Amino acid sequence: MICDNLSVKNGHLFFAGRDTAELAGQYGTPLYLMDEDRLRHNCRVYREAMGGAFAAALPLYASKALACRRVYEILAEEGLGADVVSAGELYLARSAAFPMDKVFFHGNSKTDEEIAFAMDCGVGYFIIDNLDELAAVEQLAARKGIVQKALLRLTPGIDPHTFDAVSTGQVDSKFGVPIETGQALDFVRRCLEMPHIRLRGIHAHVGSQVFTSQVFYDTADIMLSFMAQLRGKLGYTAEILNLGGGYGVRYTEDDPVVDIGGEIGRVAAHIKDGCSRLGLPEPMVLMEPGRSIVADAGLTLYTVQSTKTIPGYKNYVSVDGGMTDNPRYALYQAAYTIEPAGRMDEARDFVCTVGGRCCESGDMIQENVALPRLRRGDLLAVLTTGAYNYSMASNYNTVGRPPIVMLSGGRDYVAVRRETFADLAARDLP
Amino acid sequence: MICDNLSVKNGHLFFAGRDTAELAGQYGTPLYLMDEDRLRHNCRVYREAMGGAFAAALPLYASKALACRRVYEILAEEGLGADVVSAGELYLARSAAFPMDKVFFHGNSKTDEEIAFAMDCGVGYFIIDNLDELAAVEQLAARKGIVQKALLRLTPGIDPHTFDAVSTGQVDSKFGVPIETGQALDFVRRCLEMPHIRLRGIHAHVGSQVFTSQVFYDTADIMLSFMAQLRGKLGYTAEILNLGGGYGVRYTEDDPVVDIGGEIGRVAAHIKDGCSRLGLPEPMVLMEPGRSIVADAGLTLYTVQSTKTIPGYKNYVSVDGGMTDNPRYALYQAAYTIEPAGRMDEARDFVCTVGGRCCESGDMIQENVALPRLRRGDLLAVLTTGAYNYSMASNYNTVGRPPIVMLSGGRDYVAVRRETFADLAARDLP
Repeated sequence: MICDNLSVKNGHLFFAGRDTAELAGQYGTPLYLMDEDRLRHNCRVYREAMGGAFAAALPLYASKALACRRVYEILAEEGLGADVVSAGELYLARSAAFPMDKVFFHGNSKTDEEIAFAMDCGVGYFIIDNLDELAAVEQLAARKGIVQKALLRLTPGIDPHTFDAVSTGQVDSKFGVPIETGQALDFVRRCLEMPHIRLRGIHAHVGSQVFTSQVFYDTADIMLSFMAQLRGKLGYTAEILNLGGGYGVRYTEDDPVVDIGGEIGRVAAHIKDGCSRLGLPEPMVLMEPGRSIVADAGLTLYTVQSTKTIPGYKNYVSVDGGMTDNPRYALYQAAYTIEPAGRMDEARDFVCTVGGRCCESGDMIQENVALPRLRRGDLLAVLTTGAYNYSMASNYNTVGRPPIVMLSGGRDYVAVRRETFADLAARDLP
Repeated sequence: MICDNLSVKNGHLFFAGRDTAELAGQYGTPLYLMDEDRLRHNCRVYREAMGGAFAAALPLYASKALACRRVYEILAEEGLGADVVSAGELYLARSAAFPMDKVFFHGNSKTDEEIAFAMDCGVGYFIIDNLDELAAVEQLAARKGIVQKALLRLTPGIDPHTFDAVSTGQVDSKFGVPIETGQALDFVRRCLEMPHIRLRGIHAHVGSQVFTSQVFYDTADIMLSFMAQLRGKLGYTAEILNLGGGYGVRYTEDDPVVDIGGEIGRVAAHIKDGCSRLGLPEPMVLMEPGRSIVADAGLTLYTVQSTKTIPGYKNYVSVDGGMTDNPRYALYQAAYTIEPAGRMDEARDFVCTVGGRCCESGDMIQENVALPRLRRGDLLAVLTTGAYNYSMASNYNTVGRPPIVMLSGGRDYVAVRRETFADLAARDLP
């Protein structure tokens, strides 16, 4: 199995030590399951590796992967910081009593209302994306009579060779200010002139689903050399280097297993070398894992509603969810592993497309999946759905979103309840 | 302008006779505006054209384009039927007192709970997609002691040459049962054996955003010849022919203007010819326009939060919405027309990518748009957003969905209110 929280017993798929068929019966489908113990384990891998390897460090959970109150509580208990990208994420974090000083406020398009709300919450850091935002943050901090800590988001000019849609480190990006064009130097200079902003360091994000540290080496090289330039030209020493992102996860058996602890150790050695070569003090290092904290802690259960065999063409299996709870195939043709949760021991001689329930041809979960010949009522489990499933879910076709049921040490409990008809109509005025 | 509900006065974009800048000031952004009068006009175009051209006919509004209580009320007043694809859409329609006998329940993956709910609502027709559903509908109707009216969804084997994601009439489809393989004949035969289902006719849907009636001619030819086959082989005469879909809409000036009334007249003549050639009684004809009822009745307003010029690369403008309220660029790279709503008279010499606010590179609204050199606070209007924007919206990045403000005869009112922080956290359990 692709993650060690999965196993098979009596023909059933077990997840976090629990029989998925039993949980489907108890909670209904579609159903998001989250393995709290795995989530905590993933937090500790980053926290311990970064704590051991760097002089000072903090992993920031990238909230956009999965933001709900209970996850913020767990992250806080595990001592992580959080990267939030909207006032909404900040609101959820605050409602979980997440320590605000460890929250970093990201985003390329922050509104004045959000900036003011974040300051009122006492958010630790703004990660300022652009000159327009810099002016707005200064103005609002001045109005409130505070000095706001901040990092600046820069684009190092690296293409991480991942999907276009999740590549963010190239010069040509809607995010940040490019180093290559000289604009980043001006960005820092202007920030240092702002009396109500205290610049603590710089940030770059090179992309998601990264399996090799090479992109972190490259990013660190560019960022450290830029930090040396800031010292030489502006007399400014950045105290924090935020490397963005985290490591990739296993959606299928083809994805490699990453030794995150080992990789982080090598990144730390690379940064120490760079600092001593450039005569820089070692900065505090931040990373922003999201996917690799929650993805393999999640699994989605569906019930088959129909199977179709079209001679000379294809076989189709339709389930009771789809792009509404997991739009990643519709958006990126993302790969997933699908298991017949209640018939694990049977021969898989039925190759089919697993389609969603939406009135939209693009609503697929996966194509060319080998499964037993399924019947209406059979269960399917889609693995590694903890990231970017719940958070990207929609109500397309007026379909309610599934609940999140957490599993921990043999116990199960609802963290997010199922969306009801009343919820779906709640904003419709009479 | 691409639709006659748009005009320019004093440098401002007017929509449905109203100053969009004024409405943005009143309601905030992002903001969905809906022109109720245009919506009603679009309903009447279909209703009158179909009423005049066919012996019996009914346009069914394809709810998935935009489902909210107020829209169902307007559709009911305009005498349209509705195609729903989930219990959720049915619930909204019922809450608007939409006449249930004019509701057709679509979908490739109906659950037992939804089938039972629809029967309890007294839904007019099931459009049965497959053999598994046929058995489930028969079983539940028997249990309730009713006879359920139904159509059967067939795939005529036509590729409408539109996007893959919205093409549904090919043999290789997750929807319906193919005629070409002989499976459709068996589907009808089995349905006719069901004592608790009354088969009233057949359905096919060949795709969306169709600008020529050729696909309707082709569909009608295949479906009529299949109806003749049903008469000859099974002695069964279908009373209803549902042609699915509607005509395309103008997202940009490059899209043609369709004379819907004229086109429907030609489709009717084609069907009359076919029936007389095949010796068939003229069926009642249904169509399922969704996009062409609501798309050009909608417009979205955004506020610019930042502009970015990357020398040698591109210009970026970031707004306070994006893929969360309009995922169609992220999903299909869909074309849209963007107007600088408050600066309509200025030279458009700034070619830019209009990006959304989400932490995702693929979150774009459009690329290579010519606009005036924008500043933080400027308004942008995206045209023709009435379809598949609100209905496909998500809370990605924990961003709340915009309200829908209806405009009619100079009056404005909120049909769907803005999503609040409390809404976003409503399903999180303590």
